[in-house]
Amino acid sequence: MHKAQHIVIVGAGLVGSMLALYLVRRGYRVQVYERRADMRKAGYDHGRSINLALSNRGLAALHELGLEETIRATTVAMKGRMMHALDGTLSYLPYGTEGQYINSVSRSGLNLTLLDAAERAGVEFHFEHRCQRVNLEQTEAQFEHHGQLVMAQGDILLGTDGAFSAVRGAFQLTDRFNYSQTFIDHAYKELTIPADQGTFRMESHALHIWPRESYMLIALPNPGGDFTCTLFYPAEGPQSFAQLHTKEQVDAFFRKQFPDAHALMPALTDEFMKNPTSSLLTVRCFPWVRNHAALLGDAAHAILPFFGQGMNAGFEDCRVLNQLLDEHHDEWDAVLPVFQQLRKVDADAIAQLAYDNFIEMRDLVADPEFLLRKKIEAHLHKLFPDRWIPLYSMVTFHEHMRYSEALATGRKQQAIMDEVMRTKDLDTRWTALDFAGIVARL
Amino acid sequence: MHKAQHIVIVGAGLVGSMLALYLVRRGYRVQVYERRADMRKAGYDHGRSINLALSNRGLAALHELGLEETIRATTVAMKGRMMHALDGTLSYLPYGTEGQYINSVSRSGLNLTLLDAAERAGVEFHFEHRCQRVNLEQTEAQFEHHGQLVMAQGDILLGTDGAFSAVRGAFQLTDRFNYSQTFIDHAYKELTIPADQGTFRMESHALHIWPRESYMLIALPNPGGDFTCTLFYPAEGPQSFAQLHTKEQVDAFFRKQFPDAHALMPALTDEFMKNPTSSLLTVRCFPWVRNHAALLGDAAHAILPFFGQGMNAGFEDCRVLNQLLDEHHDEWDAVLPVFQQLRKVDADAIAQLAYDNFIEMRDLVADPEFLLRKKIEAHLHKLFPDRWIPLYSMVTFHEHMRYSEALATGRKQQAIMDEVMRTKDLDTRWTALDFAGIVARL
Repeated sequence: MHKAQHIVIVGAGLVGSMLALYLVRRGYRVQVYERRADMRKAGYDHGRSINLALSNRGLAALHELGLEETIRATTVAMKGRMMHALDGTLSYLPYGTEGQYINSVSRSGLNLTLLDAAERAGVEFHFEHRCQRVNLEQTEAQFEHHGQLVMAQGDILLGTDGAFSAVRGAFQLTDRFNYSQTFIDHAYKELTIPADQGTFRMESHALHIWPRESYMLIALPNPGGDFTCTLFYPAEGPQSFAQLHTKEQVDAFFRKQFPDAHALMPALTDEFMKNPTSSLLTVRCFPWVRNHAALLGDAAHAILPFFGQGMNAGFEDCRVLNQLLDEHHDEWDAVLPVFQQLRKVDADAIAQLAYDNFIEMRDLVADPEFLLRKKIEAHLHKLFPDRWIPLYSMVTFHEHMRYSEALATGRKQQAIMDEVMRTKDLDTRWTALDFAGIVARL
Repeated sequence: MHKAQHIVIVGAGLVGSMLALYLVRRGYRVQVYERRADMRKAGYDHGRSINLALSNRGLAALHELGLEETIRATTVAMKGRMMHALDGTLSYLPYGTEGQYINSVSRSGLNLTLLDAAERAGVEFHFEHRCQRVNLEQTEAQFEHHGQLVMAQGDILLGTDGAFSAVRGAFQLTDRFNYSQTFIDHAYKELTIPADQGTFRMESHALHIWPRESYMLIALPNPGGDFTCTLFYPAEGPQSFAQLHTKEQVDAFFRKQFPDAHALMPALTDEFMKNPTSSLLTVRCFPWVRNHAALLGDAAHAILPFFGQGMNAGFEDCRVLNQLLDEHHDEWDAVLPVFQQLRKVDADAIAQLAYDNFIEMRDLVADPEFLLRKKIEAHLHKLFPDRWIPLYSMVTFHEHMRYSEALATGRKQQAIMDEVMRTKDLDTRWTALDFAGIVARL
């Protein structure tokens, strides 16, 4: 290939707009085509999650783009999980050590910031362009725009068009393309705990969880004092969304299962009826590269939301690609194969971790043994900060550790801790454990 | 739903034409739409495997349709595997006991017989109709026929359009549809060992295998005295189809790796250059039913060919569906959910078994310990014919045992045999094993 100059990106969501910004700053001509209307004019599409947990991996990419502080100013720090038992008892578990926290951020606010920054830097955005066909031989995409056909052809074509990617649809027609989409039984619905005259009705610096074993409610704080709640509940079956038909049923369900939250949700039943019930899926595929086209972000590896890493992983894709372009002097024919080889294992790892964390959040977070295990691991980390880093911290706060390494180390730690947890009278005697001996086994 | 009367089937391959015959005999109006031209006029499409191994499950369905004897007359019995070592040494391993064998059958001949029988029974076939869109709400499909659009609407719509099913494409647009397509590293190419003036150049009543650990050649006899050979070889990499560019390279490869076969393949290099190299994939999906539409055969569960069960599983789908229609008095709203619940586990089981058998065929069949293990299992089966049935026999010769049961029993047998195989000096002393004790552990 001659030196790439012109890059076409399909999808102007979080990953697409960040990627465009990275690439325009490298000197490329970057055109981005997006199915939706320009959110800066049309308002935001409410079919998607309202806030997200931004953590170190995402922040590292924003930092490189000079946007970290701008974004941080709009977030709410969440320093730990606040678990709500059925009787209203609260228990609190920090996410990391002092100064380690995750950040509740508005999806639309973050997207707006990235769009504006990319446009200022020279990226050309084309909204209301629905991708209809991609020609991977010609590095060309065809869009429908207000009834007209529009073609876009570049040296490189990048698909950042999400879990239901149209670009990936073209990949799926090529030979030997491995693909899977796997839904979990649970769906989700977003609800609100409004602010009390601008102030938070619950602890603001926490991610709230109401773990109920086979399902859960969570709540993330927003800067305005309100919380966005998400109910994760089976889509079908005896206890499921399919059984909640009437406002009375919804009200009774929340009153019984989440009484303290119920008391803070005056518009619960209206919101429940109005807001969509959405599905949750994992997408795995390979290869991510065909000729001069590649998939990034959810288009390549949509994951479950339970580790708060979907956006962070997509931002990390952008940061890693940019770094490889540095290392290979913008030789895309060298970069793309290395990119997919490097990132595929990490994407598979975080997909697995996100699934595992779903089980942990809904089942274990409510379990005293689980809390003890976390306490022991936190103590190990305190004694040996570089030698025993809890899995959550490796994934969330150690942006230079690969997801695949975090997964592998986490598995070893789990086996060691499984044995430790079999110690007799552990709850009263755990401080007497041979902590150095435990760490030495890792 | 009112009583179903009119059934639309998409795909007139082996499963589609058998299914049409079953259903027309139940009194339905059956219309079948097929992308390809009528093979009875246009000749056969050579992009697909030429012969297949027909065994008890497939024969059971043909028997119900009164076609078993007609088909049997066109087959060649294969009573065991004939393994060809690199030095030309042959070793033979029967598939089952006396009277148990699998049958090499021509795909096109079998398809023709089914098409003819279905048409005679009143099925309406529409060839050269390419399915473009399926409306699952309306039980309606749209086809392109010589540049014209043709619509078909039925009470029930059945997709039997194979591994790359267009009907399944419509399922994939529905919410919470789980789907995976997984390719193996190996591709395949068909070749020929011609007859010697109408007679076989190798043992005719066997399936021949040249196992070479990371790849293999196999050959199935045809009634005319020739063999259809299939090379299973990696698609890419240092030892792969991608390295066989010239006739000289192909000739040298066969001469070195399959010397005895090479001597019987005068047209090898011409065929190798002319014939396509095809990919191998497993398709898993669920649900198979949406509204009044369902997927059957490869459209629902394409599997690898290494257990010789792809067609047999598809025919069993037809037989099971027909049986459920009997049991439920043709109440499709009751039948379809039961069908998918029953068959999904069996389809998953045979997919797994087919994958496992690939490993067995290419690696283990050449291994003396493997042959001893098979010998011991055959002896167990002889002593306790109803209590220890080797896995291959359960799958191939026990048409009333579900695939899922065969898989579960096979796993138990494997664990027991793994232990037996650790017995000291087993090769000389295996006849002294406590066979009753072994069977009692199952």
